[in-house]
Amino acid sequence: MRLADIPTPALVLDRARLRRNIQAMTERYKKLGVRLRPHLKTSKSVDVARMAVSGHFGGITVSTLKEAEHFAAHGFKDILYAVCIAPGKLDQAAALMKSGVDLTIITDDLDAAKTIAARGKELGVVFSTLVEVDCGEKRSGVPVESDGLLAIAGALHAGPGSCLAGAMVHAGHSYACRSLEAVAEVAETERSTGVRAAERLKAAGLPCETVSIGSTPTALHGKSYDGVTEVRCGVYMFGDLFQSEIGSCGPGDIAVSVISSVIGQRRPENRVLIDAGFLALSKDRSTANTPHDIGFGRVADIGGGLGLGDVTVVGVHQEHGMVEGRTPLPFDKLPVGARVRVLPNHACITSAAYDRYHVIDGSDEVVAVWPRCNGW
Amino acid sequence: MRLADIPTPALVLDRARLRRNIQAMTERYKKLGVRLRPHLKTSKSVDVARMAVSGHFGGITVSTLKEAEHFAAHGFKDILYAVCIAPGKLDQAAALMKSGVDLTIITDDLDAAKTIAARGKELGVVFSTLVEVDCGEKRSGVPVESDGLLAIAGALHAGPGSCLAGAMVHAGHSYACRSLEAVAEVAETERSTGVRAAERLKAAGLPCETVSIGSTPTALHGKSYDGVTEVRCGVYMFGDLFQSEIGSCGPGDIAVSVISSVIGQRRPENRVLIDAGFLALSKDRSTANTPHDIGFGRVADIGGGLGLGDVTVVGVHQEHGMVEGRTPLPFDKLPVGARVRVLPNHACITSAAYDRYHVIDGSDEVVAVWPRCNGW
Repeated sequence: MRLADIPTPALVLDRARLRRNIQAMTERYKKLGVRLRPHLKTSKSVDVARMAVSGHFGGITVSTLKEAEHFAAHGFKDILYAVCIAPGKLDQAAALMKSGVDLTIITDDLDAAKTIAARGKELGVVFSTLVEVDCGEKRSGVPVESDGLLAIAGALHAGPGSCLAGAMVHAGHSYACRSLEAVAEVAETERSTGVRAAERLKAAGLPCETVSIGSTPTALHGKSYDGVTEVRCGVYMFGDLFQSEIGSCGPGDIAVSVISSVIGQRRPENRVLIDAGFLALSKDRSTANTPHDIGFGRVADIGGGLGLGDVTVVGVHQEHGMVEGRTPLPFDKLPVGARVRVLPNHACITSAAYDRYHVIDGSDEVVAVWPRCNGW
Repeated sequence: MRLADIPTPALVLDRARLRRNIQAMTERYKKLGVRLRPHLKTSKSVDVARMAVSGHFGGITVSTLKEAEHFAAHGFKDILYAVCIAPGKLDQAAALMKSGVDLTIITDDLDAAKTIAARGKELGVVFSTLVEVDCGEKRSGVPVESDGLLAIAGALHAGPGSCLAGAMVHAGHSYACRSLEAVAEVAETERSTGVRAAERLKAAGLPCETVSIGSTPTALHGKSYDGVTEVRCGVYMFGDLFQSEIGSCGPGDIAVSVISSVIGQRRPENRVLIDAGFLALSKDRSTANTPHDIGFGRVADIGGGLGLGDVTVVGVHQEHGMVEGRTPLPFDKLPVGARVRVLPNHACITSAAYDRYHVIDGSDEVVAVWPRCNGW
């Protein structure tokens, strides 16, 4: 099967680029001597996960318990569910643990911590739990100098159905940086916040085995990881236009794209229509505030090259993408039925529209089809 | 099973509202004496489709051939695939026809029309094809007064592997209207364009059995449908915040919502976090330019009521939604673990993140689970 033959729209994964992206991060953290716990929220793929943990200790990060169940069913046993848990999910988490999974959960809420401690006892498990600490993003996590940190940690340590595993920090605001120096500063704040949380816990007589930090930009551009025990990151495996705009990858590193067919031409408007609309591409506009606003995605030729010129998806309907160029489009190369590849703004959200990857590796031949684990 | 018990995030469908929305449109088109061909791109559900065709002739509209196959496998035989077809999909379309489906396809391209005519012969079918005609949206469709209309229609009529079924018009620009008078004007343009296309085809000695028009706003607010044989619309079944903002439904008509759990509180910022982020809600911002910008969705209580106040999802990460209020949030009603329902900006895209509906009907009891047909 070749890219010219698969039904469109479809999700294409370039294994050569994927391998290169993964190897670079793997080597970086081997040299640094810090454990890499890859985040599988982007790929949601067992096949990708196996590549990502190769050469590391084997632990992974997930964003849903459904992912945790999926990866556990395929042999992954050390799993961090890195979203503050809703107490209603504790039964599902306990069932995973009883099946042999070394699951770690997180919270940033005192009442939730008490519920975790109590519910664990009722369910016959001890929930290994990290306290999430904010380092400036203000999404979730307690302030590192707060009384809350010690209160939550204390409640988890007291158990009886929980134990305190340490602290988790996520510098999501690294994505708002527009220079690598700024990213490095945020990375240092993320690191120092995790280390400071550990100091405070230990000073209070509490354990803190794990100091977990991470985001793709801070994992790539931090200058020190002293005191950190684990780094989480995920989108580095695929890359996307936004990551490229902020310097976390080059345009030639983007491993995932959407193959689409031309379904109409509008020469007076210098436009063609493709069969990838907002369901196939998402409505992500992450590049809107980056140096180059790339609409809903950049349009490459079927080989993934940019020979069509500066061509972007400027608008999306459910199953229609409107493609325009800054210069006259090469309409002779884009008849109805021609195929293009759209590089996505945001790999995580675009990939989520598909139940599988069509994997290529250095040619237009589809060498594998890898399933994804979507939904909840 | 009750809404308090299902894993979150999940998609909730209120069957009472769905029934009411469907009945209103069904009655309208019965009275008008025009065939209603419901568009299933929003619901992608056989159960919803059965309700939507009840009392009508049974024909449906779809946005993908996968939907066509899914509905055909469940007994729907008169199907319009209302996106200009890429020639690479003709084999799949022919296979559907050979299985007994009365499939209609569309095009707006002369080369594609010729390919359809030729490929149909090779495949041993006659592709019943509508010519798409633009009525001002400039998404797809030929201009009604163009030579292209007659050339494409002529090629389809000449066959041998195609026949001309008529003309299709879609007034997607009705969504840009900000008054019902403006919608009514666009509806009249849509109608008159379809009728004019039929006149031109007939004057050229070509058949035009079908004049198909439609979008939810123009289906609801047009003043005449004279000369139209079929109306297509879909989102009216569910409604959403955007439809409510533009007057196509009331806020109390929105039948679909996302049930989500609170996973964190940030009292200093007057904010809570929920476990519905951009995968669960989408990044749709359709309401950004309507009278009320509702962020990424309005937050209702678990019963669907608006008793929490003017509370919206102001930001989304992959599995985190940031919820804020214009007035102080009732934090006592929103502890970690509490459940809320998020009304979506755009029913089509939010629903697409889920593989099933949790159906309620007048209470908090889940009375059914209905599957969806996603992807391609």
